[in-house]
Amino acid sequence: MINPFFKNHGPIKLLNILKKIDIKSVNIDTDQIINDIKDLTNSQTSEITFLHSKKYKDIANKTKASFCITNNKLKGDLPKSTVPLIVDNVLLSTSKITSMFYPESIEDNFDSTTTNIELTKFKDKVHFGSNVLIGKNVSIGSNCKIGHNSIIERNVSIGNNCSIGSNTIIRNTLIADRVNVLDNCVIGKHGFGFFPIKNNNLRYPHIGIVIIEENCEIGCNSTIDRGSMSNTVIGKNTFLDNQIHIAHNVRIGSNSIIAGQVGIAGSSIIGNNVKIGGQAGISGHLRIGNNVEIGGGSGVIKNIPDNTKVMGYPAKNLRNFLKENK
Amino acid sequence: MINPFFKNHGPIKLLNILKKIDIKSVNIDTDQIINDIKDLTNSQTSEITFLHSKKYKDIANKTKASFCITNNKLKGDLPKSTVPLIVDNVLLSTSKITSMFYPESIEDNFDSTTTNIELTKFKDKVHFGSNVLIGKNVSIGSNCKIGHNSIIERNVSIGNNCSIGSNTIIRNTLIADRVNVLDNCVIGKHGFGFFPIKNNNLRYPHIGIVIIEENCEIGCNSTIDRGSMSNTVIGKNTFLDNQIHIAHNVRIGSNSIIAGQVGIAGSSIIGNNVKIGGQAGISGHLRIGNNVEIGGGSGVIKNIPDNTKVMGYPAKNLRNFLKENK
Amino acid sequence: MINPFFKNHGPIKLLNILKKIDIKSVNIDTDQIINDIKDLTNSQTSEITFLHSKKYKDIANKTKASFCITNNKLKGDLPKSTVPLIVDNVLLSTSKITSMFYPESIEDNFDSTTTNIELTKFKDKVHFGSNVLIGKNVSIGSNCKIGHNSIIERNVSIGNNCSIGSNTIIRNTLIADRVNVLDNCVIGKHGFGFFPIKNNNLRYPHIGIVIIEENCEIGCNSTIDRGSMSNTVIGKNTFLDNQIHIAHNVRIGSNSIIAGQVGIAGSSIIGNNVKIGGQAGISGHLRIGNNVEIGGGSGVIKNIPDNTKVMGYPAKNLRNFLKENK
Repeated sequence: MINPFFKNHGPIKLLNILKKIDIKSVNIDTDQIINDIKDLTNSQTSEITFLHSKKYKDIANKTKASFCITNNKLKGDLPKSTVPLIVDNVLLSTSKITSMFYPESIEDNFDSTTTNIELTKFKDKVHFGSNVLIGKNVSIGSNCKIGHNSIIERNVSIGNNCSIGSNTIIRNTLIADRVNVLDNCVIGKHGFGFFPIKNNNLRYPHIGIVIIEENCEIGCNSTIDRGSMSNTVIGKNTFLDNQIHIAHNVRIGSNSIIAGQVGIAGSSIIGNNVKIGGQAGISGHLRIGNNVEIGGGSGVIKNIPDNTKVMGYPAKNLRNFLKENK
Repeated sequence: MINPFFKNHGPIKLLNILKKIDIKSVNIDTDQIINDIKDLTNSQTSEITFLHSKKYKDIANKTKASFCITNNKLKGDLPKSTVPLIVDNVLLSTSKITSMFYPESIEDNFDSTTTNIELTKFKDKVHFGSNVLIGKNVSIGSNCKIGHNSIIERNVSIGNNCSIGSNTIIRNTLIADRVNVLDNCVIGKHGFGFFPIKNNNLRYPHIGIVIIEENCEIGCNSTIDRGSMSNTVIGKNTFLDNQIHIAHNVRIGSNSIIAGQVGIAGSSIIGNNVKIGGQAGISGHLRIGNNVEIGGGSGVIKNIPDNTKVMGYPAKNLRNFLKENK
Repeated sequence: MINPFFKNHGPIKLLNILKKIDIKSVNIDTDQIINDIKDLTNSQTSEITFLHSKKYKDIANKTKASFCITNNKLKGDLPKSTVPLIVDNVLLSTSKITSMFYPESIEDNFDSTTTNIELTKFKDKVHFGSNVLIGKNVSIGSNCKIGHNSIIERNVSIGNNCSIGSNTIIRNTLIADRVNVLDNCVIGKHGFGFFPIKNNNLRYPHIGIVIIEENCEIGCNSTIDRGSMSNTVIGKNTFLDNQIHIAHNVRIGSNSIIAGQVGIAGSSIIGNNVKIGGQAGISGHLRIGNNVEIGGGSGVIKNIPDNTKVMGYPAKNLRNFLKENK
């Protein structure tokens, strides 16, 4: 389940899809309709997918999608049942098509569907402060608290026994039971993702959401961006200190402890029982194993295997770091 | 004076205290009552204290507490008048007992005792913006300003000639005269302190407060956490830039200058006339002397003596850092 | 144009200016009036300027100012038409005189001139959320959105097709067309500038503003301070991620990309097409060229020429950094 919240504006005629990505003629019926865009694994007949890297060769040849945005080098990895649509920049074209199906996933203007909680069905169920706003498609469990001036924008599900602080903004987020989100947080906004184009960067869609599993704590003034084509996940019983930034598509395991001002760049995956000291940074697209300890201030630019302690910038084995810096 | 604000729910019967920390039988009258829990120095007869490290040996044998949570290795350091209560994990047990006396110091839900300032006694005294909320047990001096949407939660004392910005949240804090707190700050929330327990971390109590002495400035989007068993203190005429994080129990001296995005981890003590460059980080439980200068971006992991200039990660003597990096 | 917003309280009699900076007797008519204080290049007859460094020698001897605050070493660089006013600390005295002309530029209390947007002329023009406040001297273009609880304080101009998030505070700022400012930002507050004086730091005036050119994006929980004697500028189509701090007088070129938690210290100038990785920091008063790439976590303490890739702390050539850290 990638996008429970964003409305699919499909089906869309193939002709219109081809126009959008400047494909002039293909030897097929352009009147047929396409229902959705999904990744290689989840896509079905009459849907479109995309293939932009050799890394996905193995799953590419099993896709059930009828069409696949790709390039000349990669098209051979697709099964015969999938028609390749050849473009110069696969991700840019994928972004354009995703925007056709999910236009609401690009712009992140304030949610104007909100209502003061006193006028909603949550009036008697939730313990709330002054000036709390609730958007469309919000559910809230029992025994929850929401502080002053907080805005639960559209597409949020909050479990039981949760405490949301004051001045906090949440959208496109699933929150499990017993989660505390403290003050001044912003959770579920689109990530920092766009194609740099001179004078007019092109924002790409973020159809993923944020998932915060049970018993987590999110510190004050923290930001957690929702995923682009997958989700951003905070595993159960993981505690985040203040002023932490979690970028789009990051997945953090359970029982992890992340100290103040840490930043985790996009799409990195953090294991279970991981401890990260204050102000440490983790580059994008990395894998940090289970039971890893990362010293405060570290800059991690490589994968880290399970059961390892590292420190430094770039982060190295803790013992080496301490020896070199005696 | 550690906890002027949190209400002591004692006295509590010794029997109930022993139950809480799984001590089955002791050779004493379990009907007697315990009035409070305090540190070794401040505790008195009929109170309970705790001893978890050899470091405190010298003050341990002078404690006046009737009971002391400790372990088998340390119990010999106590005077005869103090009954040792032997546990496996001294801090965990201390946390449990502190929670019995001060249950309000654990959870930091939004303050639901607040009232719009227009309905309070401060209406004619304070120059305030729109939507300002005031909690219980708040005092505000003369000639103060409080910006829009700010929330002065319970247990706050503000001196004379102070300016609080907009969207700022303050609780459990003493603010002296001529202090400016800018916008979007969160001051006085519980620190990032808990015992990591699989699937269910145990938050420990924070009965300390935040003290901001006269003439300080706290920059926008900063967070200052209150202390756990002691206080978090910002000394007089110390200026903090934007996006700074000060963890629980930190004490900063007077006339210090702390640039943007600096983070100071728990229980570190910073001297007077200290200058800290932007994005520098200071590990927990350190002592930074007077007249110290810490270069921007530094990561300090050791104590620093008075009158020293350091830079680097880990921070070293500035001259060495510059020589090595020519 | 430096200060389109702050009201000039001049003209001021020369006598009063001399008193303020403790100049007892000069051999000139102290009854004459001074109209304004400006930098060396922009000042005119009957205005005062300042010269505090040899660096400005070449522009100093072309100034048209009638008076110049300077010291004995530098006074020889002024033209004969400019009377030098000799002081011990040029910047401190300049600050005092600037405060006389622009008293509102020192204190940054909340803007009490604001009105709920529903009661303003923007009511039908702007798409706004709940509890939006608008200060004096604000203009807003067509097709703009302003989220819940946001405060557009005095002296703000917003172009067409802009989107301001929720809980954001803006003052003394010019925003061009198609700019997105996300949630919980503070833009246009005074910078972290003051003269350290024991027990009573002296804040200096910030008569500059913030200029955000067209098509920019400013991420959540970011802070951009206005300039002191010049402006803080974000060039067109430059995108900032979350939790970024831009200090006073910084100028960033166009088409630049700045990732999360980056901090740029005061008065640094960043070129066009610059990419800065997450958590990098840039010291003050530096020049970063065009097409520069700065790796995540870097600490930049020297100027960087055009077309260079750097990484590390201190930042060095990327190739060297990677070689040394294999």
